[in-house]
Amino acid sequence: MPFNRAFLTGAELHYLETALASGTLEGDGPFTARASALLNKMLGAVATLLATSCSHALDMSALVLDLQPGDEVILPSYTFPSTANAYALRGAVPVFVDCRPDTINLDERLVEAAVTDRTRAIVAVHYAGVGCDMDALAGIAERHGLRLIEDNAHGLGATYRGKPLGSFGSLATQSFHSTKNAHCGEGGALVINDPDLVLQAEIIREKGTNRTQYYRGEIDRYHWVDLGSSYLPSELLAAFLTAQLENFDVIQAGRMRVWNAYHDRLAEWAADNGVAQPVVPVDRVHPAHLYFLVLPDPAASAGFRRHLADLGVQATSHYQPLHNAPAGLRFGRTAPGGCPTTERVARQLTRLPLYTGLSDDQVDRIVAAVTSYRV
Amino acid sequence: MPFNRAFLTGAELHYLETALASGTLEGDGPFTARASALLNKMLGAVATLLATSCSHALDMSALVLDLQPGDEVILPSYTFPSTANAYALRGAVPVFVDCRPDTINLDERLVEAAVTDRTRAIVAVHYAGVGCDMDALAGIAERHGLRLIEDNAHGLGATYRGKPLGSFGSLATQSFHSTKNAHCGEGGALVINDPDLVLQAEIIREKGTNRTQYYRGEIDRYHWVDLGSSYLPSELLAAFLTAQLENFDVIQAGRMRVWNAYHDRLAEWAADNGVAQPVVPVDRVHPAHLYFLVLPDPAASAGFRRHLADLGVQATSHYQPLHNAPAGLRFGRTAPGGCPTTERVARQLTRLPLYTGLSDDQVDRIVAAVTSYRV
Ligand SMILES: Cc1ncc(COP(=O)(O)O)c(/C=N/[C@@H]2[C@H](O)[C@@H](O)[C@@H](OP(=O)(O)OP(=O)(O)OC[C@H]3O[C@@H](n4cc(C)c(=O)[nH]c4=O)C[C@@H]3O)O[C@@H]2C)c1O
Ligand SMILES: Cc1ncc(COP(=O)(O)O)c(/C=N/[C@@H]2[C@H](O)[C@@H](O)[C@@H](OP(=O)(O)OP(=O)(O)OC[C@H]3O[C@@H](n4cc(C)c(=O)[nH]c4=O)C[C@@H]3O)O[C@@H]2C)c1O
Repeated sequence: MPFNRAFLTGAELHYLETALASGTLEGDGPFTARASALLNKMLGAVATLLATSCSHALDMSALVLDLQPGDEVILPSYTFPSTANAYALRGAVPVFVDCRPDTINLDERLVEAAVTDRTRAIVAVHYAGVGCDMDALAGIAERHGLRLIEDNAHGLGATYRGKPLGSFGSLATQSFHSTKNAHCGEGGALVINDPDLVLQAEIIREKGTNRTQYYRGEIDRYHWVDLGSSYLPSELLAAFLTAQLENFDVIQAGRMRVWNAYHDRLAEWAADNGVAQPVVPVDRVHPAHLYFLVLPDPAASAGFRRHLADLGVQATSHYQPLHNAPAGLRFGRTAPGGCPTTERVARQLTRLPLYTGLSDDQVDRIVAAVTSYRV
Repeated sequence: MPFNRAFLTGAELHYLETALASGTLEGDGPFTARASALLNKMLGAVATLLATSCSHALDMSALVLDLQPGDEVILPSYTFPSTANAYALRGAVPVFVDCRPDTINLDERLVEAAVTDRTRAIVAVHYAGVGCDMDALAGIAERHGLRLIEDNAHGLGATYRGKPLGSFGSLATQSFHSTKNAHCGEGGALVINDPDLVLQAEIIREKGTNRTQYYRGEIDRYHWVDLGSSYLPSELLAAFLTAQLENFDVIQAGRMRVWNAYHDRLAEWAADNGVAQPVVPVDRVHPAHLYFLVLPDPAASAGFRRHLADLGVQATSHYQPLHNAPAGLRFGRTAPGGCPTTERVARQLTRLPLYTGLSDDQVDRIVAAVTSYRV
């Protein structure tokens, strides 16, 4: 059983054929409009700009907010390197804060102590698509005049107090990497919730030019007006993604079935063995993006993965902490108190296979493999 | 007759189906390996890393060479904004040099006067795929200890003194944008000719991590080790591009037919009307990427495009000069003497439709439309 297998909804090939027949596959064509409209609707966003990856959407966020060398950005240490890179690339300093032991999200109780007069933004990464404590983070951001950004790579389809993840920050980012619920191999989006940021984001995405305005007929030539790069995905990717987004409920039903089976059927074993299951606070809906187990110690965790591998189940660790990674030490700063929970979780967390195509029989075999392990 | 219509070689859909069936579309899969191998062979490169665009490959070049704020990079004013953005994004200063009136390429005779003790690199943009004077530029780079970079967005398949464009710089970049000879809608590549730069380029392309080494089995965990972003294109794009590259000779034969027809059949009209046709020095082979005409003055040029539009022929101007663009003034510096030729060419140059799918009958009609214009 592989850890991941990208799911096809059935419409992908047909949409690719339609795109091929159109005579051009350059970005911002009809499928990009269609996928963006679907995302806008799902997220209630002012605008959603498809991008070449979530990493690039994060890079765009740093440019849109015009972060400067020496500015500080608060983010969790337990995240993918892209969350920190985006700001380090602009010379801003990622300030690493520890995660909560329950949700594995940025610990909102530690954030305020990390704020200085150089702080410009907080990045909330919704681990496994379980929302961070957005009320607390929004309160801190407001008190200190900081921008709130959501790295929502995992969280499409999830909510916090009834509102979609991705709708809280001035900016949010989505990933359509092959491992994500809806995907196109590699892809992403910048979600814009603050109308004042749309024009600047369009310019940055179009190589620092006003080409988007040109193609809307608002100006008669386009020019180099600011920093930027080319973040437009090919229409091939937009076509594929459209098929995924239009059938998102099918994808989600399949993943939820697997997630719920794991959660129910591993509960007793987890309690007996001191293993922590994912925690989803009652005011949040998760998107069945990851199913993970936190073993009681590093040796048990390594043993657990070996045991599963021997039984043909590919289970994997996840992020390596950023605060003590070579680039984290060079470009970042660690908040007071360090990141002990992050270090522990990084050594003790294991993800189980989770994808729409997993059959009930395969799930049975994975459950049996897990529960046959004694810590 | 539209200005461009992306050509399909016939294998694209089949390759897309193969990619779809593989269970993952994330970057650096089998089609990426196949397309990279084809490009390595065409270019004689040490390594070719597919990227999400030529703009991104240029961004990568600035990171690979570790350009710092205040460093200077010499490049033509007559190019696409991405050529300058890549360096301005790192805080380096684009230094704009004028173009030659014949090839519309960076005027190598003006380059040395633009060199200062801050200069780190020269970017040769091969306009329309006609090579710059690489011997002269390589000589200057060597004398002053500068890196040579080729923005070869237009030049796949072209040669200078028998060697492929893209093989001269430490780094070169390719574009697979929908307007390019071989394309996948949006895409690019970083070509590496200096073996010492490969590892660093792999890290930058993989979000600043050593994930490429991890997947080669050289290390047992990957970490955040340096700046980077996600420049991997989806396997969907690599599959499509593979089809294009495998049939590159078909694409080229079709384009060459159109280019040669224009060149031969417009020669007399051009001479009679003071119109300049493209100049290809005898030691260079061009790839039939663009066919352009430089009219004798701006009014004639505007009149010419209107005349063609009235006859149903979509012909377009090209770059707006960068040295006097808002971002050029803000982030760059203009070399002594300014860029008068660039300013003139920008106002007087018109590109004709050029793509493999243009029929002989359509070419006849375009030639008739052009030659019915009197300056
Ligand atoms: C050397 C070099 N280096 C790097 C890269 C980056 O590659 P990636 O895309 O892979 O990152 C490129 C890519 N450039 C290509 C084309 O070469 C370029 O022409 C343009 O094409 P368009 O889609 O806009 O269409 P068009 O038909 O060329 O023009 C349409 C109308 O727009 C008007 N116009 C045009 C310009 C240019 C301008 O400044 N201002 C302006 O008002 C003229 C027309 O009427 O953009 C492309 C991305 C490059 O050339
Ligand atoms: C919050 C957040 N923000 C932004 C983005 C950017 O998105 P874009 O891609 O769209 O730009 C992401 C994307 N991340 C995803 C995955 O979440 C991530 O897991 C990883 O997936 P992989 O393909 O590597 O596979 P895997 O199966 O997750 O791991 C495979 C093995 O690698 C070992 N490993 C793993 C890690 C992570 C690490 O640091 N070090 C390490 O030694 C564990 C295994 O044995 O990379 C993806 C791009 C993100 O999560």
